[in-house]
Amino acid sequence: MKRIEILDSTLRDGVQGEGIYYSVEDKLNIVKALDEIGVDYIEAGNPGSNPKDMEFFERVKALRLKYARLVAFGPTRRAGVAAEDDPGCRALVLAGTEVVSIFGKSWDFQVQEVLRTTLEENLSMIRDTVEYFVSHGKTVFFDAEHFFDGFRENPDYALASLRAAKEAGASVLVLCDTNGGTFPDDAAKIVAGVAEKAGVPVGIHAHDDMGCACALSLQAVKAGAVQVQGTFLGFGERCGNANLSSVIPSLQLKLGCRCIPAEKLPQLTHTARYIAEVTNYVLPKGLPYVGKSAFAHKGGMHVDGVMKNPRSFEHISPELVGNRRGVLLSEVSGRTALLGRIQAIDPSQTKESPATRRALQAVKELEHKGYQFESAGASMEILLHKQLGLFTPFFELEHFKIIGEQFAAGEERPATAMVKVRVGQKEEITAAEGAGPVNALDRALRKALEVFYPALAQMRLIDYKVRVMEPKDATAAIVRVLIESTDGRQVWTTVGASQDIIQASWLALVDSIEYKLLQDSRRAR
Amino acid sequence: MKRIEILDSTLRDGVQGEGIYYSVEDKLNIVKALDEIGVDYIEAGNPGSNPKDMEFFERVKALRLKYARLVAFGPTRRAGVAAEDDPGCRALVLAGTEVVSIFGKSWDFQVQEVLRTTLEENLSMIRDTVEYFVSHGKTVFFDAEHFFDGFRENPDYALASLRAAKEAGASVLVLCDTNGGTFPDDAAKIVAGVAEKAGVPVGIHAHDDMGCACALSLQAVKAGAVQVQGTFLGFGERCGNANLSSVIPSLQLKLGCRCIPAEKLPQLTHTARYIAEVTNYVLPKGLPYVGKSAFAHKGGMHVDGVMKNPRSFEHISPELVGNRRGVLLSEVSGRTALLGRIQAIDPSQTKESPATRRALQAVKELEHKGYQFESAGASMEILLHKQLGLFTPFFELEHFKIIGEQFAAGEERPATAMVKVRVGQKEEITAAEGAGPVNALDRALRKALEVFYPALAQMRLIDYKVRVMEPKDATAAIVRVLIESTDGRQVWTTVGASQDIIQASWLALVDSIEYKLLQDSRRAR
Repeated sequence: MKRIEILDSTLRDGVQGEGIYYSVEDKLNIVKALDEIGVDYIEAGNPGSNPKDMEFFERVKALRLKYARLVAFGPTRRAGVAAEDDPGCRALVLAGTEVVSIFGKSWDFQVQEVLRTTLEENLSMIRDTVEYFVSHGKTVFFDAEHFFDGFRENPDYALASLRAAKEAGASVLVLCDTNGGTFPDDAAKIVAGVAEKAGVPVGIHAHDDMGCACALSLQAVKAGAVQVQGTFLGFGERCGNANLSSVIPSLQLKLGCRCIPAEKLPQLTHTARYIAEVTNYVLPKGLPYVGKSAFAHKGGMHVDGVMKNPRSFEHISPELVGNRRGVLLSEVSGRTALLGRIQAIDPSQTKESPATRRALQAVKELEHKGYQFESAGASMEILLHKQLGLFTPFFELEHFKIIGEQFAAGEERPATAMVKVRVGQKEEITAAEGAGPVNALDRALRKALEVFYPALAQMRLIDYKVRVMEPKDATAAIVRVLIESTDGRQVWTTVGASQDIIQASWLALVDSIEYKLLQDSRRAR
Repeated sequence: MKRIEILDSTLRDGVQGEGIYYSVEDKLNIVKALDEIGVDYIEAGNPGSNPKDMEFFERVKALRLKYARLVAFGPTRRAGVAAEDDPGCRALVLAGTEVVSIFGKSWDFQVQEVLRTTLEENLSMIRDTVEYFVSHGKTVFFDAEHFFDGFRENPDYALASLRAAKEAGASVLVLCDTNGGTFPDDAAKIVAGVAEKAGVPVGIHAHDDMGCACALSLQAVKAGAVQVQGTFLGFGERCGNANLSSVIPSLQLKLGCRCIPAEKLPQLTHTARYIAEVTNYVLPKGLPYVGKSAFAHKGGMHVDGVMKNPRSFEHISPELVGNRRGVLLSEVSGRTALLGRIQAIDPSQTKESPATRRALQAVKELEHKGYQFESAGASMEILLHKQLGLFTPFFELEHFKIIGEQFAAGEERPATAMVKVRVGQKEEITAAEGAGPVNALDRALRKALEVFYPALAQMRLIDYKVRVMEPKDATAAIVRVLIESTDGRQVWTTVGASQDIIQASWLALVDSIEYKLLQDSRRAR
């Protein structure tokens, strides 16, 4: 079984994609998810060009990663400056990662027209920079930028750039199709030639400007590449990078390579959807392997064929990558998946019991309304308790009202919310101001409930995400809100969906408070 | 120059995609667009399985097509029924097209497990059906379904199915990777073997379940295929079909093939966006060649490189396919990028002029507050007009107030908004209800302004996106709203950011309306 290393660059090349932005918190969450699925390397930033990344590299040191090694990325030293005097190189050392990716030019045209230096100086820049990092004890991956374009126009020079990096101690020579214009079969021939003579492992880094980045990566592996770089959802400059959620299963299931641990492959779909959620990105339905429609059958003959034998219209079994067949909906697989959670609450329930069926039905209906429980386990927990008849409401809403107003430009006023709740026979009415109506509502609700449940004072919201579900309907579209909360002991996520963002936020807020109170009451028992 | 025939199946295989639906009117519009760009064949329906398609085939006869020929699609006759007695075959004749596509099984497993007939009978079904249509004067394309899967398991039988079609008079033998699980290089070897001996032209029909449909199609052409089937935007069953808007330019610009007339290629982007509009589909930004970001540069070194020579980070010139270069404004790219936009408004400005500095400063400050202009060109335009002293406000806000309320669970009430604006000396106050406060505010604002600017009635919001910027602050975090609007003539995007989602939406709404009025007033001049 051929071992292929995976380098994920979602947090570096991925953020070059239009509309992709991560906070440090987002980056840490994505690092955890990529480590959890067993990616080898996480290229997480360019500390020299983006000073914000330094905070990330500081904070990421506190994470204990099981599989992945972090990689900091940066260019070769500038022309005419020693590596140790180059601020970019120094920033990269300070990032403190065991591995660095250094990119340098392999295309003579780029050296002369863009870098505007001599061909000789560029080779020295590659050599010096790689040596500098090796002397600092780093493992160095050399990203040969524009390698294929360079090879086409001046193969000797392109190969000389690789030789410079290798002689200076680079551990992997990564051939980059930076502009995405190379045919996969042409790339494969070049990779084969390089891999045969390189004497060090060769990697591949492809862009999707012809829609061929996955094919190019796969064919490069067949030709001898042993490291594949890409981004988990294909984010990246222009048309994006090779999509690892497509490449990994093809390599692993069809070429018999080992990229991530075999037992992790069924997490593929979950990981893709989780990263999409953190990115606030709508995962394309038809994305290979992990998209919602990737195994959805619509044509009559296709549905019939799949019923007779799934192999007739599926190239792999969806379960292998943690996805689901579309025609069966949740009828079979859904129920099994839910059963585990149901039995954790009430071990007497079976696959066929009415409560299980009811719960499944409720989940389906809510999903249809825009809910998504994939990352909102606490809302699922509340829902199942309700369906099993094991939930007693902790409070009831009597009425809330929110008011936002604004006068002529510049004059902003805080939003206000009034909330009236009932707990048993007692009522409580209060009001609060906030930065926007949702914040005001959140404050007013807690203020009212803390009278009855002082433990709510321990709780705070740490994350609030909004996703517009059907953007075509513009401001009347369905909105999904995800709220992450903590009481210092644990972290939980809840979900609400509605056409009205206030209503959606309210539903997620209520679930979050109920979850806290439910956990406390179970611990008290 | 090698001539490659293009068959577009957006209206047939495309509608197998989740969420894709066309009215007869939509179909006619798409036929016109595909003909306009010079596609050879338009596979437009399956009259046997979809009786609605008959109306379409009736009405399409009235169109005078310049380039394209229509194709009706259907299966071989059923087992044990003569073709002339098979309702599917008869429906296909009635469709009245010059060309028909007949699909039949090439995979022994499918014949036995799904059709549940004998291998011999399946070959007779292919032969009889093709003969039947040839005898009715039709040109017949034979779609060898599951050809590659069949060839892998029983090459003799797969080839026998082709032979049956050829001997019966099929004009093209189309090799289908129906399940999308074949590697492009493996497919290319098989295509080469078939094409060499077929004696009739060979076509290729690929699906994207591994993300390799484009590469497979391109490599099949290199191996001898002369017809490429796909869908213009990649719609289709599961992960979709080969995307013709990617395949055509690669064939034409990089392999020197002639697919569509050379002078039509610059219409590619327009045609893709038009079909997306008819489909009510949001075209992925990163779609090769035709996506909004396909030639958008964000990384600082990329922007610098492209400014020096576009070739450094573009595999082709965007103009060749009717797309445009974009420079995404981000923390990294700076004054140079902005200057182009400033000079488009006021050519007398220079890199060093005070207005340029002021504009850059304003952009930076707003970005720091959570704005993001890279995809909000219309807000940028308004901002630059303001900074250059070239903007006169079209209206002023006096006051708005939004109210949302909810009573005990289940009782939802629409949100309401009251808006008072002033235009010159005249005031207008009005109110509206909506699904949520933002929708109510949007409606009330337009209602008030249409009194002064009736042209606003042409305008509608088509996309509304919300991004929470610093989720750590939960409901008090900064929220960024992106709004996409259209007046049927063009599409523009605006941005607003604030801690208050209502305020953020208000800012984006106002920019959107001001942009529309600014464009109209410039056209009027």
